[in-house]
Order: sequence, then C-alpha cells, then structure tokens
Amino acid sequence: MDLSKLGEFGLIEMIRRRARFDRRVWRLGIGDDAAVLRARPREELVFTTDALVEDVHFRWRTTDARALGEKALAVNLSDVGAMGAKALGCLLTLGVPEDVAPARLEGFLDGLLRCARASHCPLVGGDTVRAPIWLISVSAVGAVARGRALLRSGARAGDRILVTGELGGAAGGLALLDGPGAATPDERRLLARQLRPRPPFKAGASLARARLANAAIDVSDGLAQDLGHVARASGLAAHVEVERVPLARGLARAASRLGLDPLALALAGGEDYELLFAAPRGGPTAAAYTRRLERRVTEIGVFARGRGVHFTRGGSPYGLAAAGFEHFKPVPPESEK
Amino acid sequence: MDLSKLGEFGLIEMIRRRARFDRRVWRLGIGDDAAVLRARPREELVFTTDALVEDVHFRWRTTDARALGEKALAVNLSDVGAMGAKALGCLLTLGVPEDVAPARLEGFLDGLLRCARASHCPLVGGDTVRAPIWLISVSAVGAVARGRALLRSGARAGDRILVTGELGGAAGGLALLDGPGAATPDERRLLARQLRPRPPFKAGASLARARLANAAIDVSDGLAQDLGHVARASGLAAHVEVERVPLARGLARAASRLGLDPLALALAGGEDYELLFAAPRGGPTAAAYTRRLERRVTEIGVFARGRGVHFTRGGSPYGLAAAGFEHFKPVPPESEK
Repeated sequence: MDLSKLGEFGLIEMIRRRARFDRRVWRLGIGDDAAVLRARPREELVFTTDALVEDVHFRWRTTDARALGEKALAVNLSDVGAMGAKALGCLLTLGVPEDVAPARLEGFLDGLLRCARASHCPLVGGDTVRAPIWLISVSAVGAVARGRALLRSGARAGDRILVTGELGGAAGGLALLDGPGAATPDERRLLARQLRPRPPFKAGASLARARLANAAIDVSDGLAQDLGHVARASGLAAHVEVERVPLARGLARAASRLGLDPLALALAGGEDYELLFAAPRGGPTAAAYTRRLERRVTEIGVFARGRGVHFTRGGSPYGLAAAGFEHFKPVPPESEK
Repeated sequence: MDLSKLGEFGLIEMIRRRARFDRRVWRLGIGDDAAVLRARPREELVFTTDALVEDVHFRWRTTDARALGEKALAVNLSDVGAMGAKALGCLLTLGVPEDVAPARLEGFLDGLLRCARASHCPLVGGDTVRAPIWLISVSAVGAVARGRALLRSGARAGDRILVTGELGGAAGGLALLDGPGAATPDERRLLARQLRPRPPFKAGASLARARLANAAIDVSDGLAQDLGHVARASGLAAHVEVERVPLARGLARAASRLGLDPLALALAGGEDYELLFAAPRGGPTAAAYTRRLERRVTEIGVFARGRGVHFTRGGSPYGLAAAGFEHFKPVPPESEK
C-alpha cells in the first residue's frame, strides 16, 4: 500500500471494505456525508470522544500499531460503558504523515476493527487527513434505556464504592516502558495493561439494566481523581480504605524494583480503564457482582455526607497528593504519558 | 488564561460554562463520561466528523482564531445538512500546544460556540489534549425523520442537478491567500469564503422535510468530484452545462489577476460548502427553490442513465481533469489547502 498512490479515497475505500455493520442498527455506514443510525424508542443515546496523539499519548518506539488501534477504540468503549450504555458504533478521525509505513497503517486499522468486531461497535464513518504526526480521535455512540444512564452525579450517601479488576497496572507498565522494560511475566502483564487496555465493556450496561449501580465512571485519570469527580458531582465525600484497593498482580514487586510506591500507582496512576461505581447500600455483595460481571469486583469504601476523597490505612488518614493525569500540568514522572 | 496554571480540568470547566444546551434535547452535556441525548421516536440520527490540522488545513499566519472556530463546526454542519438532517449537538477534540496563546484559544472557542448558538447545535462534550500543533476534530450528530435522509445514492435518471450559492469562491480565496492577498472588496469576499465558510445549514433539512430532493452532498472537494460521488453512488451519469455553473462574484476578475481559470476553480476547487442536490423531474423551478431556501439556487444539469460526470460548453464536451482535493495525492497548486 502506497498512500500517495492509493490516495485519500482509496484509503477510505480500503477501510470501508473492512468495516462491517449491522443494518438493523445502522441504515448507512462509511461512504456518505454522515452515517445514519436507526434510533429506537425508549432509549437515550450517549456520545463521547477520546484522542491519542503521537509523542503525547504514545511513542512509536514502544508501541505496536495493532495494540494502538485496539486502544484507540477501547478507551471510548470504556466511556460508553461507564454511562451504563451499550456501544452502537464509532467514527475515526485519523491523521497520518504522507510517508506512513503501510504495515503500520494496516496494523492500526486491523487492531481498531478487531476491537470493533469484538465489542459489536462498528466503524461507521470518519475523516482521514494528512498530518505531520499521527493523531487519532475516535468518537463513539451508545444506547441506554431512558433514565438508566449511570451519571457521575447519581451516588447517594451510604452507597458502597466498588471497582472492577485491579488498579495500578497501567501506571506500573508505563514506568517499565519509560524505564528498564519488562523482565518477568508479571511485568509483561503490567506492560500489556498500559499498551492494550481491556476495559470491562459490558459491565456498565449490565449494571444499568439491573439497576445495580447509582453512579459510575471509568478509572482513566487515576482512582483518586476519578472518585473525586463522582464525589463532587454527587455532593458527597468518598471514604476509601487503601488496604482494600486491589493492586495489579506483580505491581508490588515491579514497583519495588523501580523504587516506586505501588499504592501510589494504584491510587493515582491512570489508564486502568476499570469501572468504578456506586452500589446501593444493602445490595449484592462484591462476590455477587463478580459473578454477574465475570470480572473481579472489590468493595473499597463508602460514600457519605461531606466532601472530598478520604483515604485511610489501618483506620488512620492516609495522605496522597491526588495526582492523576492532567494535560497541560506538570506531572510526576511516573504518571507522565 | 495560563494553560499550565488553568490545567486540563480548568480548561474543560471554562468551556462547559460557555456551552449552553437545550435540556429537552440533551439530558446531559459536558462533564460526564459522555453526553446523553434524548432520542425521539420516528427519527434517524446522523453522525459525522471532520478535522482541521495546523499547517495542513490552515496556517496561523493567515488565520483568525475566531473564524477557525466557526469553520471547525461549520464544515460538520454542512455534512449534517447534506444528509437532510437538523444538527442536534457536537463534540470537540482539541489538541493545542502547552504554550498556546490564551487569546488564540479563547478566540477559537468563541468562534465555535458562536456558530453552535447560531445553528442550535450545542457543544456537549469532547476531549482536550496537549499536542505539538493545533488539531481540531469536531463530531456532530443530527436528526432526520425516518427514511428521509438525503443519501448520495438517491438520485434518479431525469433528476435535475441543483446547487445553492456560488462556486469557486473558496478556491479563489485560497489562491489569494497563498499569493498576493486580497486587494478589492470582491477579493476580500473571496477570502472570506475560504476562511469563514457559511454553509446553508438548514437547506438540506428543509428539502428532506418537503421531499424536494432525492439526493444531496455538500460541495467540499469540488463540484466535479462531489457530483461524481453522487453519480457513482446512484449508478447514473451527471451532465452539467458549465455556462450555468454560478461563479462566485468577483472570481473572474481575481482569477485573471492570478492567471488562473475561474471555471476550473468553480468546477474543481473545494471548500465552497454549498449544497448540491438532485431535484425530482417536474418539481419546483430553481427560482422556487431559491425562495424556499432563502439562498440562490441554480439548475446546472441533469442525471441520466450512464456513468461519469460530463461537462459541456456550448453543447460540446468540455474537458476538465476532475481534480478536487484529496489528501495524500499531489494536487495542482490552485487547489492545495
């Protein structure tokens, strides 16, 4: 594939041929001025977008094109799921240099389309542009039954704080990526959490359908920060016992080798893309949630009247500069992306 | 405004405060994992996205931030309208350098939000990222009554080819921008067509509602190319009498000063963002369309059995390398963007 020979329309046609969509949901996919969705009654639609920029969010030196394609869509699916919605489709804005390596472009598209198939979230449109660096912006649309969306503002005093999966893995992986690299199977697993996040796509929709959560957010900027968003939007305080926070497997050992605090990585490291949610008081146990979501679920604390995010260890306050990741702000090296 | 002091969340909050949306349409705007739209029964939704990249689509040397903000949304509204849909809302992915000039950022947002208000298409979400250059990707969602979307494939043999407004202005403006600049009021008007396109936002929805068009596309890549998309998708030939193509006011004189062919600019120049549509045979006259759309409408040709786009002048074939603009392909200087 030679982009300058293939041209923009050749590239679009190549993508169109590979993208497949369900005509019961979509009347029209790639190839017109816009994609057309058959809206269903009694549903609300959710819209979200997330971008990845070369040398800001990833470096080609340490990135596999296929994994990047998967991640570009996965981070959007994570947002759709965190609204309690089922993903319906996505748009891709792709900027690449004129002299892009064909294998890299094909790998990226393969990864994205593989994720699209696996999540039943077809690529239905987009825009391709020439750009000095790779820039990827994916928008996704999803559907949720009317009034059932899981908003950040929905937590109530007494709700329990639950989280899927394990935390700190992506931040640990990033530290390895920027540092010595992965030496053990556990460390390679951490690396994969950073390079190839696997959000629990369907967990949010499952919780919304069964009314088993009052609020949700995906852990993309770090537990401390994302929990803070929910607490603030709900007008509550969040209390977390840090001993209960599920650390990624192998994180403690890798952090020790790197001279980092594993708990800080788990509490403030970003990009885990796990689901953090407020479960109604007196509802199912974490074990029951684990069975329903087919992913480990851990209860780590409770929402109460007040404000702020409060960590305790052994009953005493546990200090943490609620770092998380923010663009445009100086961040400590271990959470630099 | 200092971005490194304001931070990503400060920037988002600043945008959120300025963005206003209609709670009858949107349950939720900026500030959660996704925006939530109240879908209406008997409607289909359309999705589209369009990107602008610094030094590819615009250069700061010749670009006003406010005009760029308007354009970033306007080009998406043009696509929504070309589907016969009414715009409902948009998402903005904005990448800017850390040391972005505050006035530039505020100007851009002001322009985009002004266009959002004027078109009743509120900004409901997005993503802000750090990037080495400005990159802007806007996604828009619109609604159209079920089955009424104006597809490229809907033209029928015998349909008349109509176009709103005037053509070649944006291409002429670009040639002035890259060349000697504008010296006369007419030339300044051409420049404005390039820098500040004003698509007929509501024309497509008006045509779809009244069933007054069988197909539509916006003229973004040039008449020859965009008409080719409709002809190909509809399995027809398009015949255009070039004498009837409405040239932008002042284009002939400006082109002569620049040593360019005004007709080539009107037929192959892009970014006019006018609406090109297939009107049913025996329907209203162009004058009646002009009154309905409150914008000049000109009949320039007809769809017939066959294939390809055929230009004639004085009844004889008129040759034109159907250039238009394509990323990743060498293009003649006058259509370089």
